[in-house]
Amino acid sequence: MTSSNSDFTLGKGRLESFSDGVFAIAITLLVLTLHLPATQGPVPAAQQIHDLLSIWPQYAVYFVAFGTIGIMWINHHALLKNAERVTLGILIANLLLLAFISFLPFATQVLGQYGITNVAIVYYGIVMSLISVAYTVLYFQVYTAHVPGKTRMQPWSFVGLTLYPLASVAGYFAPMTGLLLMALLALYYMHPRNVRTVMLPGG
Amino acid sequence: MTSSNSDFTLGKGRLESFSDGVFAIAITLLVLTLHLPATQGPVPAAQQIHDLLSIWPQYAVYFVAFGTIGIMWINHHALLKNAERVTLGILIANLLLLAFISFLPFATQVLGQYGITNVAIVYYGIVMSLISVAYTVLYFQVYTAHVPGKTRMQPWSFVGLTLYPLASVAGYFAPMTGLLLMALLALYYMHPRNVRTVMLPGG
Amino acid sequence: MTSSNSDFTLGKGRLESFSDGVFAIAITLLVLTLHLPATQGPVPAAQQIHDLLSIWPQYAVYFVAFGTIGIMWINHHALLKNAERVTLGILIANLLLLAFISFLPFATQVLGQYGITNVAIVYYGIVMSLISVAYTVLYFQVYTAHVPGKTRMQPWSFVGLTLYPLASVAGYFAPMTGLLLMALLALYYMHPRNVRTVMLPGG
Amino acid sequence: MTSSNSDFTLGKGRLESFSDGVFAIAITLLVLTLHLPATQGPVPAAQQIHDLLSIWPQYAVYFVAFGTIGIMWINHHALLKNAERVTLGILIANLLLLAFISFLPFATQVLGQYGITNVAIVYYGIVMSLISVAYTVLYFQVYTAHVPGKTRMQPWSFVGLTLYPLASVAGYFAPMTGLLLMALLALYYMHPRNVRTVMLPGG
Repeated sequence: MTSSNSDFTLGKGRLESFSDGVFAIAITLLVLTLHLPATQGPVPAAQQIHDLLSIWPQYAVYFVAFGTIGIMWINHHALLKNAERVTLGILIANLLLLAFISFLPFATQVLGQYGITNVAIVYYGIVMSLISVAYTVLYFQVYTAHVPGKTRMQPWSFVGLTLYPLASVAGYFAPMTGLLLMALLALYYMHPRNVRTVMLPGG
Repeated sequence: MTSSNSDFTLGKGRLESFSDGVFAIAITLLVLTLHLPATQGPVPAAQQIHDLLSIWPQYAVYFVAFGTIGIMWINHHALLKNAERVTLGILIANLLLLAFISFLPFATQVLGQYGITNVAIVYYGIVMSLISVAYTVLYFQVYTAHVPGKTRMQPWSFVGLTLYPLASVAGYFAPMTGLLLMALLALYYMHPRNVRTVMLPGG
Repeated sequence: MTSSNSDFTLGKGRLESFSDGVFAIAITLLVLTLHLPATQGPVPAAQQIHDLLSIWPQYAVYFVAFGTIGIMWINHHALLKNAERVTLGILIANLLLLAFISFLPFATQVLGQYGITNVAIVYYGIVMSLISVAYTVLYFQVYTAHVPGKTRMQPWSFVGLTLYPLASVAGYFAPMTGLLLMALLALYYMHPRNVRTVMLPGG
Repeated sequence: MTSSNSDFTLGKGRLESFSDGVFAIAITLLVLTLHLPATQGPVPAAQQIHDLLSIWPQYAVYFVAFGTIGIMWINHHALLKNAERVTLGILIANLLLLAFISFLPFATQVLGQYGITNVAIVYYGIVMSLISVAYTVLYFQVYTAHVPGKTRMQPWSFVGLTLYPLASVAGYFAPMTGLLLMALLALYYMHPRNVRTVMLPGG
């Protein structure tokens, strides 16, 4: 591609507001993946209590996924904050990232339908790993748009690219452990030091 | 935590617009929790009228929940208006609050599926109580970020933290009374005086 | 109420962006009310074509409702554009209006489930009539906040408050005629002259 | 129509933010069209894997549709960027365009329910063709608002108006080929040169 695509016709403000919208909608759609067992006619109170408690794995997944998208949004903002120019590469990488993030409610629904099984956790972990890849690609697109010819892998990139697949493998043998590991990874990304390294040098 | 997290990398504008998005989506998703009884083929007019009227509890819950989220949004705005700095604590407390608010459509759906039963009302009341807790936590995060070392409990906090659990207990014995109490609590929070106390002193 | 609520703690910008969000979401949720007849396993091509054509009433309702919400959004904007002060009355009337507008996807779904029957059209017409009422209330709230002690009924108000109920009655006897009348009413509100009268004098 | 409608009462900022909202919601709703085969009770791991893999056509459609809406959003922005005046014609054409774009999740759901059959692909192609028409109408509305009396067809218009119907015809005989052609068309519209021609001369 030529240099003619280095100053794309899209302002950063629009890119941010569109991305914000997708993050906000994806995070709120998570609630639609919660489902009670189907019932017919009046349900005895004891059955209601039982059913509301029996879907606790769905609650756990809801909060893990909610926290994950929320924290990704924080990091996404920190990253774009420094991008003064919006290149075509940034746009495409950003669309890819949003496509995987918008996919998370489906992975959550799979966990709701099958329960926290090893297959469903691995599926969720694969989506999280793909998000890590897309995130890293976006980082490099932003980085090279500002510091041409130089790229530097960041610690948080290694963490995501390595530990999400590992947590998926762990989840295959012990589903709840896998889910817990992914929740911890979300907390890792919440730490301000890691959010800061997302930014460009001097940003 | 060190002082390095006192000026987080996220501007207040982005925090507000993201929160606005989640509030707007959660409030609009409420309509998806309305369900007519399932039907097969053409339905006689008398049956249509009967079914449309028979789901009146769903209408009542829809408007109570809509009003509740709308008023929480007003208060949320009044609170963030004074937050000049966005700390990590504010971000986390805000995410927690949004997670519970986004959960409300599910609590509404439980009321739609079971009807206004005592179990479903208590469930709804527990979610509202958790929202009160998260709201109070967010208030203290904003407060201590601006007036370090001093915290002051506000009247509206006592009201929410006390009366939502009480309304839940009342709802266990008389579901409609519990729902009515929660609707009145929403009106309480709509009063400008209470909205004002959400703000910081001198704000 | 005292004058203390005349300058509420909510900026117009936030009110607009929250309302924009609700309008945008309600209009987009309309697509979720489209449903094909349920099928099991592979469906013959002729059956697919038949089913896709047989739901044409849903298509008609989708476009009427989409146009209606879109045009209401245009008018809503023209109205709020002149509101320099956000009073508590404006906030409450606005929430009420948004609650009815967000309800439209359900009325659309009723038309999808029952077909364009007289009951379903009357139901849709009642919701549209309530929207007209809420709109008129909001108009007076904005008006009196700016021109205290004077109120002036606008032509568009009479049109909505009178013709939506009439179209509902017509729809009871001839459903398609009722739907057509409501589509025409949406076009009426799209005319720039009517959008302009929504504005305040000198606005 | 008179010249009185040439300066409509709607600011461009509101038009953009409303459109952004609709694009963001439509793109995120795509995930709700993904559906696993219904199951009862615990599902064997092998069955889970089989079911998750068997819906690969849904994944393919999800990413094609996501990319398509994302790229239409980019082009939509480039087009509106130059519109200094918002006329009634622009508003109506824009509403029509948004109505078809919001319709895409349903066309995607049809592909999910029937599979990538020739009927479902043609249906999807018809919606894409209608989007091309609405897009071209919007372009001319923006163009004539700025350069009265002159209209100039753009290459990208011919491409969309010609190739989407052709891809639909191809899809009737070879569904996967049709889907692939439509994915390639999305890539065509992503190219910066085509995005640039969307802009007005001197814009």
